[in-house]
Amino acid sequence: MSQYQRPNIQRMAGYQWGEQPVDETCIKLNTNENPYPPSPAVAQALGAFASASLRTYPQPTADVLRTQIAKLHGLSREHVVVTHAGDEALRLAITTFVEPGGTFASADPSYSLYPILAQIQDAQICGIELADDWSIPEDFALQARAAGAQLTCVVNPHAPSGHFSKTQRLREIADEISGVLLIDEAYADFVDPAKRYQSETLVSQCNNVLVLRTFSKGYSLAGLRLGYLLGDPELITPVLEKTRDSYNVDAISQSLGLAALLDQSYAQNTWQKVREQRQLLAHSLERMGWTSLPSEANFLLATPPATGISAAEIYRQLKAANILVRYFDHQRLRDKLRISVGTADQNQTLLAQIQRIGS
Amino acid sequence: MSQYQRPNIQRMAGYQWGEQPVDETCIKLNTNENPYPPSPAVAQALGAFASASLRTYPQPTADVLRTQIAKLHGLSREHVVVTHAGDEALRLAITTFVEPGGTFASADPSYSLYPILAQIQDAQICGIELADDWSIPEDFALQARAAGAQLTCVVNPHAPSGHFSKTQRLREIADEISGVLLIDEAYADFVDPAKRYQSETLVSQCNNVLVLRTFSKGYSLAGLRLGYLLGDPELITPVLEKTRDSYNVDAISQSLGLAALLDQSYAQNTWQKVREQRQLLAHSLERMGWTSLPSEANFLLATPPATGISAAEIYRQLKAANILVRYFDHQRLRDKLRISVGTADQNQTLLAQIQRIGS
Repeated sequence: MSQYQRPNIQRMAGYQWGEQPVDETCIKLNTNENPYPPSPAVAQALGAFASASLRTYPQPTADVLRTQIAKLHGLSREHVVVTHAGDEALRLAITTFVEPGGTFASADPSYSLYPILAQIQDAQICGIELADDWSIPEDFALQARAAGAQLTCVVNPHAPSGHFSKTQRLREIADEISGVLLIDEAYADFVDPAKRYQSETLVSQCNNVLVLRTFSKGYSLAGLRLGYLLGDPELITPVLEKTRDSYNVDAISQSLGLAALLDQSYAQNTWQKVREQRQLLAHSLERMGWTSLPSEANFLLATPPATGISAAEIYRQLKAANILVRYFDHQRLRDKLRISVGTADQNQTLLAQIQRIGS
Repeated sequence: MSQYQRPNIQRMAGYQWGEQPVDETCIKLNTNENPYPPSPAVAQALGAFASASLRTYPQPTADVLRTQIAKLHGLSREHVVVTHAGDEALRLAITTFVEPGGTFASADPSYSLYPILAQIQDAQICGIELADDWSIPEDFALQARAAGAQLTCVVNPHAPSGHFSKTQRLREIADEISGVLLIDEAYADFVDPAKRYQSETLVSQCNNVLVLRTFSKGYSLAGLRLGYLLGDPELITPVLEKTRDSYNVDAISQSLGLAALLDQSYAQNTWQKVREQRQLLAHSLERMGWTSLPSEANFLLATPPATGISAAEIYRQLKAANILVRYFDHQRLRDKLRISVGTADQNQTLLAQIQRIGS
């Protein structure tokens, strides 16, 4: 161990990213990528991009894309900061709003990156246990407030359960906590439109709400690293003008992200297909004796029959059969697998393998 | 002002990026970009990149590129972490090695981003004045040590003067300070090979040296945001595994960066042309009564004749003539302009305009 690193860095463990297969034929259902490719407009933008223009710095605040994002959400450009994927957005929220020694609150379990980013900032972590049905407990905001949380993070739909909270519930939390509420909407594109989820209204109504969005899932651009934060200009401005790296979004990402965003009908079509496949997959698993929570995300948290092979063993056997799903060694997750919704073909292959393993 | 941001963020001012012209015919000599386009191999890699592959996450540690960078410098992969440009590398060094309330040291003046990154971390800034000839003063390391600097940053060649320090001088500093020495080599590609500058040797010899490199200048890829740190594995590992955003380098940058790096002869040819133009520009300015410091970077810090129009006014008149150079409102820089070395044509146009303004 180097004598030079900060003690909090020395103590902490780093983020464990999802496995990446070497074999390209592998069915990869472990990191919640969109199973459909990005819009053809992205390929066109890539083909049209002049490499000579890479010689100069990109536009520092990605303003063309930023304006289009604002328009999509019915907000003004001052409500938007474009980021190097959702990870940067999360880090910037912590950097800007959480003091070293201060407190960061989130549900436990949640996206495993949250506590790691808090540890890098040397912040205290207030992990609040979810209710048995994975909903946000009634006293969530009170607990966060009692802990003095400067930033409270809620992922909606929740990961890894897929549980969905309504806008009104988030509004209550925003009103009851004492710091900033970050609503991580990495998976919000996959919520059934019938739910009429409209967290943008919170951005206009509450001066302490940040909404995080990413191009990684909804726009099939995990490889590009592009996301954004929506919020009151008083929350967005210090991120935009001070804590963000000066040129945080490269020129190609600005161009391709814009192309993807403008092709809403293509993206929405992939979301609809994912929803259909999600339902089919849940029903098929159910017929095989599995249970899965109602999910509004592009994954299912599914529990194999208690009488059969363990989740960990199914994970291993699926991997041996060239299918990756996610197993978490966490007390509430050890009997479950998180399965990203794939294409119809991928899901069929998965189900066939589960059948084979179980028999 | 929002009540939610941290007091140190509220107090500080953000980074002021160089002006970006709207007019594409503008001659842009204000942000030290390489005047030549990136290698044709970059255009080829861009054309060959399959947009469908953006659906999945990039390789988290950019290992193919990382291996090639190690090879270029005669080091092992464990000595390298690839970053989202030099800005991220600087931020990560501060995040990993400087405590909030701890001390960051650098020469004053230097790259204006340094104190901003230190302020985001709520660190103390120890600015050490350079000697009259812009060299690093004899007692530099002692001053940094006395201030208890956990990270000391030296940019070599120095910005904005272009002054060059030899490897041996840096070695002395590394030996004398008490924390980590980061050698920011953003401009090192433009150093005359006759100087036999070899800071890689320090990486192998000293366990407290980080060397920062960027693709922005030497490889004409400022728009892409790609850089790296070299250092002892004990310094690199916490950055690679803990403090870095998990997927900090996007898939396209990994591919294009590799293409640029492998075409060394193209890149080296642009460096040689910049050196030739640097000398011609310095001589031409001299003939017009200007002085400029010997520069090993791709810019000149040039002083117009004291009897004539002020540097600030020349900056304004050049801007009116569609030429951007950099003016700094800093006590040692107010009578000077930092001029990026352009192509032969650009430099001729600049000189003609300076002649016109002066007459």
